[in-house]
Amino acid sequence: MTKGKKWVLEKHFQGMPKRSDMKIVEFDLPPIKDGSVLLEAVYLSVDPYMRVFSARLSEGVTMIGEQIARVIESKNAEFPVGTNVLIEAGWVSHSVSDGKNLTKIPPYPEGVPLSLALGTLGMPGMTANYGLVDVCSPKAGEVVVVSGAAGAVGNVVGQIAKIKGCKVIGFAGSDEKVAWLKQLGFDEAFNYKKIKDLDATLKSVAPNGIDIYYDNVGGQFSSTVLDNMARLGRIACCGSISSYNDTKPLLLPAVHGTLIFKEITMRGFIIFSYRDRYPEWVQRNIQWIKEGKLKYKEHVTKGYDKMFDAFVELFSGTNTGKAVVEV
Amino acid sequence: MTKGKKWVLEKHFQGMPKRSDMKIVEFDLPPIKDGSVLLEAVYLSVDPYMRVFSARLSEGVTMIGEQIARVIESKNAEFPVGTNVLIEAGWVSHSVSDGKNLTKIPPYPEGVPLSLALGTLGMPGMTANYGLVDVCSPKAGEVVVVSGAAGAVGNVVGQIAKIKGCKVIGFAGSDEKVAWLKQLGFDEAFNYKKIKDLDATLKSVAPNGIDIYYDNVGGQFSSTVLDNMARLGRIACCGSISSYNDTKPLLLPAVHGTLIFKEITMRGFIIFSYRDRYPEWVQRNIQWIKEGKLKYKEHVTKGYDKMFDAFVELFSGTNTGKAVVEV
Ligand SMILES: NC(=O)c1ccc[n+]([C@@H]2O[C@H](COP(=O)([O-])OP(=O)(O)OC[C@H]3O[C@@H](n4cnc5c(N)ncnc54)[C@H](OP(=O)(O)O)[C@@H]3O)[C@@H](O)[C@H]2O)c1
Ligand SMILES: NC(=O)c1ccc[n+]([C@@H]2O[C@H](COP(=O)([O-])OP(=O)(O)OC[C@H]3O[C@@H](n4cnc5c(N)ncnc54)[C@H](OP(=O)(O)O)[C@@H]3O)[C@@H](O)[C@H]2O)c1
Repeated sequence: MTKGKKWVLEKHFQGMPKRSDMKIVEFDLPPIKDGSVLLEAVYLSVDPYMRVFSARLSEGVTMIGEQIARVIESKNAEFPVGTNVLIEAGWVSHSVSDGKNLTKIPPYPEGVPLSLALGTLGMPGMTANYGLVDVCSPKAGEVVVVSGAAGAVGNVVGQIAKIKGCKVIGFAGSDEKVAWLKQLGFDEAFNYKKIKDLDATLKSVAPNGIDIYYDNVGGQFSSTVLDNMARLGRIACCGSISSYNDTKPLLLPAVHGTLIFKEITMRGFIIFSYRDRYPEWVQRNIQWIKEGKLKYKEHVTKGYDKMFDAFVELFSGTNTGKAVVEV
Repeated sequence: MTKGKKWVLEKHFQGMPKRSDMKIVEFDLPPIKDGSVLLEAVYLSVDPYMRVFSARLSEGVTMIGEQIARVIESKNAEFPVGTNVLIEAGWVSHSVSDGKNLTKIPPYPEGVPLSLALGTLGMPGMTANYGLVDVCSPKAGEVVVVSGAAGAVGNVVGQIAKIKGCKVIGFAGSDEKVAWLKQLGFDEAFNYKKIKDLDATLKSVAPNGIDIYYDNVGGQFSSTVLDNMARLGRIACCGSISSYNDTKPLLLPAVHGTLIFKEITMRGFIIFSYRDRYPEWVQRNIQWIKEGKLKYKEHVTKGYDKMFDAFVELFSGTNTGKAVVEV
């Protein structure tokens, strides 16, 4: 009998997640039936949305999440032993599947790590494509602001915006992140923790206003960006991580007048609603990687038992690029 | 020499407009040249946007606005004496035009008043068409909430939403307005000034959430509606009249989280950006009027000297349907 481990949400998070809110539990995996496979986690994803979606989970259940797993036992010819797949199995070390909820990982160019299936070539990379291209329709010469710019989604957004010929301004939480953004080709990049006057900074780098704001953070930061939008601007409401650990509703200046008189569109979306389009975007990103137009970085935490640490570190900004846990 | 009158913005409004902020001034009209016409105002429009746009005017200039005027002297064969036209001449009793800024009013069905060119068959009616149909793409069976529902724009929005097969819920500021909305075919209508718990009211009439919110008022009201939107909901940000006289920024709960996790689009627009489409919408509204599907009401104030009164009454809700001033 195979023994597995799972991370259980013991208690709903209140404010910043605490280690005591979660627990690692051992469990026995059932023997696999015909048509099924036994999977072992190779890389697990930690993502900000887990903080938000956990509120809908019952206490005592396994934490949700996606992972790259390897088939270690197979009674399904489609998924022989050694196959790498994506599965939304939660924070588990092992799982059993009948194959229906598995996504094969397409061949990657030489040197591209498998773990990218959780980052630039996975959900965050898909989010960047949909949120920037579909939601905001960037046109060459337009000014794009990206918050959370050195994160899994944000760095891809900025690079695609450059591919589309835009002027790209990124905001991230450390000088090292800012340096990396400049390497990636961002026209301007700022450490938002050190900026004294965001409004003045935006006015100096975007004197004619911001055409597109790709919002990963929400909060007061995004109010100030809104004030600096150009007429007919578009805002992709992707994330509001600055508020995920809030315990009371945040008050901000009303948006209505600005949206009307500047003719602005704000659009929220959840990438899971567009899963059928992932293959198209994966191929597009692979192509851009091949052409050297799309670079990537990962922040790898080693050890399944470190999942909680890797997760909470998202909220202190430890990661540059995509945060993953390697088993 | 013809003498005219004009309403001048003496002082920028602070809070609710005061009579002393404006002044009626007499002036001499120049003799008309070849190609020009002399116009006399017949109906003048008072609209909420004037409150907002006046902030951009210099003190001492004529208040902006549209009117229906009649040609009383003509040296332009295209506009003979007696022709009725639309002109954005401001709050003036007389004006001279070379014809380029004049819009002829198309023939109306028997019994339809000329003044409708400022309401259901004018800018507000165009706004309703664009904001509901183009911005929100209403589908039969969807739930539509309209604020400012008994106003010039709102009543048309609700009626078009009924034509599109939606369930329509309107909010307006008096019991008489509510009674009129029900006559127009609104499925539900409420006097928002008498509602104790808007959130509970919305949950009872839209238990599965609101698909479309046509927002004429902004403010706290609209925050509560946002909380009750359905997944993939659309919000047309048309007006925020509840804040036009505010002297300090209004704080409201941040919208970001709701927009993202409910996948909502909020879109602000200014109808003047879509002037080229007015003829199409005018004909559509005329057709609906003929078919008895689109009804109208006007609130007519008599006397050019009463323009200021008619204007400020917009902010106390005196008008049901479109507010116009008859000279
Ligand atoms: N709508 C969707 O379908 C969808 C899909 C994926 C992700 N998202 C959202 O997109 C955003 C980015 O996700 P990701 O996967 O790319 O995560 P990530 O950016 O790789 O990691 C989170 C980053 O957020 C920043 N951050 C943390 N607390 C912050 C705060 N209080 N204020 C400002 N920044 C803060 C940190 O960077 P700094 O050093 O810059 O502070 C941190 O590194 C998140 O809000 C996430 O929920 C949405
Ligand atoms: N985006 C555009 O291009 C565009 C074009 C036209 C109009 N608009 C906007 O659409 C809205 C409606 O315009 P309209 O021409 O149809 O005007 P209207 O509704 O005919 O007249 C204004 C109405 O607003 C309501 N109101 C006044 N103060 C209010 C408050 N504090 N809270 C809630 N309601 C209040 C009153 O009705 P109650 O009795 O119900 O309070 C009043 O009758 C306005 O906000 C206007 O600025 C926008």
